Amino acid sequence: MDICECVKRIKKELDSVVSFWTAHSHDKVNGGYYNCLTEDGKVYDSLKYGWLQGRQVWMYSKLYNTLSHYHTPEILGAAKTGGEFLLKHVLSSGGSRCYFILTEEGKPCKLQRKPYTECFFVIGLAELSRATGEERYWLAAESMLASLIHWIRFDDSELGAPNLPGCDPCSELGRPMMLLNVLTEICNGQSELRDKYKEHFQWAVEAILKHSDGNWVREHVAPNGSLLSGCRGRQVTPGHALEAGWFLLQEAATRGDTALQSKAIKQFIEAPYAYGQDKEFGGLYYFLDTDGYCPTQLEWSMKLWWVHCEAMIAFLMAYEATGDKQFWTTFSKITDYTLSKFSDQTHGEWYGYLTRTGEINQTFKGGPYKGCFHVPRCLLYCLQILERLDKNTD
Amino acid sequence: MDICECVKRIKKELDSVVSFWTAHSHDKVNGGYYNCLTEDGKVYDSLKYGWLQGRQVWMYSKLYNTLSHYHTPEILGAAKTGGEFLLKHVLSSGGSRCYFILTEEGKPCKLQRKPYTECFFVIGLAELSRATGEERYWLAAESMLASLIHWIRFDDSELGAPNLPGCDPCSELGRPMMLLNVLTEICNGQSELRDKYKEHFQWAVEAILKHSDGNWVREHVAPNGSLLSGCRGRQVTPGHALEAGWFLLQEAATRGDTALQSKAIKQFIEAPYAYGQDKEFGGLYYFLDTDGYCPTQLEWSMKLWWVHCEAMIAFLMAYEATGDKQFWTTFSKITDYTLSKFSDQTHGEWYGYLTRTGEINQTFKGGPYKGCFHVPRCLLYCLQILERLDKNTD
Repeated sequence: MDICECVKRIKKELDSVVSFWTAHSHDKVNGGYYNCLTEDGKVYDSLKYGWLQGRQVWMYSKLYNTLSHYHTPEILGAAKTGGEFLLKHVLSSGGSRCYFILTEEGKPCKLQRKPYTECFFVIGLAELSRATGEERYWLAAESMLASLIHWIRFDDSELGAPNLPGCDPCSELGRPMMLLNVLTEICNGQSELRDKYKEHFQWAVEAILKHSDGNWVREHVAPNGSLLSGCRGRQVTPGHALEAGWFLLQEAATRGDTALQSKAIKQFIEAPYAYGQDKEFGGLYYFLDTDGYCPTQLEWSMKLWWVHCEAMIAFLMAYEATGDKQFWTTFSKITDYTLSKFSDQTHGEWYGYLTRTGEINQTFKGGPYKGCFHVPRCLLYCLQILERLDKNTD
Repeated sequence: MDICECVKRIKKELDSVVSFWTAHSHDKVNGGYYNCLTEDGKVYDSLKYGWLQGRQVWMYSKLYNTLSHYHTPEILGAAKTGGEFLLKHVLSSGGSRCYFILTEEGKPCKLQRKPYTECFFVIGLAELSRATGEERYWLAAESMLASLIHWIRFDDSELGAPNLPGCDPCSELGRPMMLLNVLTEICNGQSELRDKYKEHFQWAVEAILKHSDGNWVREHVAPNGSLLSGCRGRQVTPGHALEAGWFLLQEAATRGDTALQSKAIKQFIEAPYAYGQDKEFGGLYYFLDTDGYCPTQLEWSMKLWWVHCEAMIAFLMAYEATGDKQFWTTFSKITDYTLSKFSDQTHGEWYGYLTRTGEINQTFKGGPYKGCFHVPRCLLYCLQILERLDKNTD
């Protein structure tokens, strides 16, 4: 695959994916977006997922802010209806938390004891404030960011999970990863903002690096990086590691830090790709155990769309950072597998969940964990890199 | 398959399964049982699951109390070490709840916002009190039963899940089902005890029946039995329905209630078996949607051991209750599929999780949701019925 051909392929894919969501997900009565959509876009459940609302606001705002093709009143309007839904309904009445599940009208159904809905509330509103210039979105984002930093770095007791004496202190990869991503999104490369959050950036990068021992990126380690016992300590999630890899590469590029770039590529991109591949049926596993025990998660061997999205971004970013052709070769291989297995050329968007052997296991396009986010984010980021590469080779 | 041949097959299987747990699961240092065991019995994680501790205490005590072959000091001793672990560690310090996950030494790691660990605490200790004659086990069981009745029938706010305004009131099939099973186990057919809990038996039976509209046994309905919207209202779980079916059949037999027997068989055994079968690859699905949408649970099409255990008991019990040969034919068909696909003739015990096509997806024999319970319970109950049938045909 050459770069110019790849640009066309990814651009076409992005348009088809975004059209799926703009055509089928908008709730014109209550604002916000329907998340549960069948293969052909029918709403099969009217519940709304707080984190998917935040993700779609981010996605639309990002498209508006970065691609002239999407810099339209329609996309901005669609982003704003989600932003209003976030502020009016997803944000809890006291303003301290975000609901995970809500009815279509915005009545809360479930609050998680995890901080991830809040992460997407922050990045959605931050990007929307850049699109609209409206400060109230920015203020809500930065205020929730302060809580996120407190929960992730210092004390998460406000999240409501009891701290029982049998639980060894544990760093979950998702927390420093998401904090790094949220900080990157909030600052958007602006040096004043980066200065303000400098120490938190540094903490997040160091906390992520502690999850790698050079060979494995473990999902759970002790706060000092040492090994935890049992399944928890042995669990690896290749897609998560690859996503952390490109978060670190973004940060390395902003800093011009080649040592961080090299660690990100070796430990968080090359290593998890090597151990995460299914050599028999292709694609990347969802969960594995470092010592070869069978993971207890029933879906361990399934092939998930987002894992492959992260792998695409990670290898293309590694290629742009280094110019090393082997990363382009791997990117091309993953992209071929991913587009051929997940993308639905008939109705648009991608299937999310395949069996180990690559059969479609879930026909829906949107569900509680799959919204307008990983696919278009991957396609947008790949397109931006490919266009830069294309320009440089002209 | 004739009955006499079937008795031999099931007896041999039961002995092989029980041997697996007695050989590999006992924690001789801390008491209680290791739950996470590989294919060949190695402990791959030392965490202990409260509900699996209670289930194993029940299983050992039941075997001791009902089969002369297992009426041994070894089985009683093994049941007692689990019973002590329940009282010392699984029961929370205030005595009001049971921990879901503990370290091997008994330090608590996780408390669920569901009442199921408590259900197995009650039936484990009740059966152990019958085995040992020790009243303290009985008192602990009846005291926790009072809490269970309160949570399941009247007010579950003590379980800690917030009641948010977007959640329509909902009956979860698992709750009345487990209450009926716990009451059945506590009373063990004794009329004095049945009188004491009579009204709760009646409530549980009626609440279960509300989950069937004649065609489908829905996992979630409104408290009056009416339909709930969305995926929640459309979810059916054939294994759960079949298990409820034989719980109802047990109750119908105790009462001599032929109307209840007929409802149990038609609505909770024949119907879910009809819609639950995978006509392409054999076996029973885990989750389905009444309107044919794709379930959002990633494991919806997988074949789980316990689902097939419940189907075996349900059809054999229906055959004993009615003498209708078609139930024997279905029982034989399910038993052939189940033993050929799940049972491990090399190391003993059964695999728990197969892909839709019947490949082993998880090699372990014990994990967070699979312990010494569904397989030996199924084999014991089937053996007891088969021996009665065998005697009657002599």
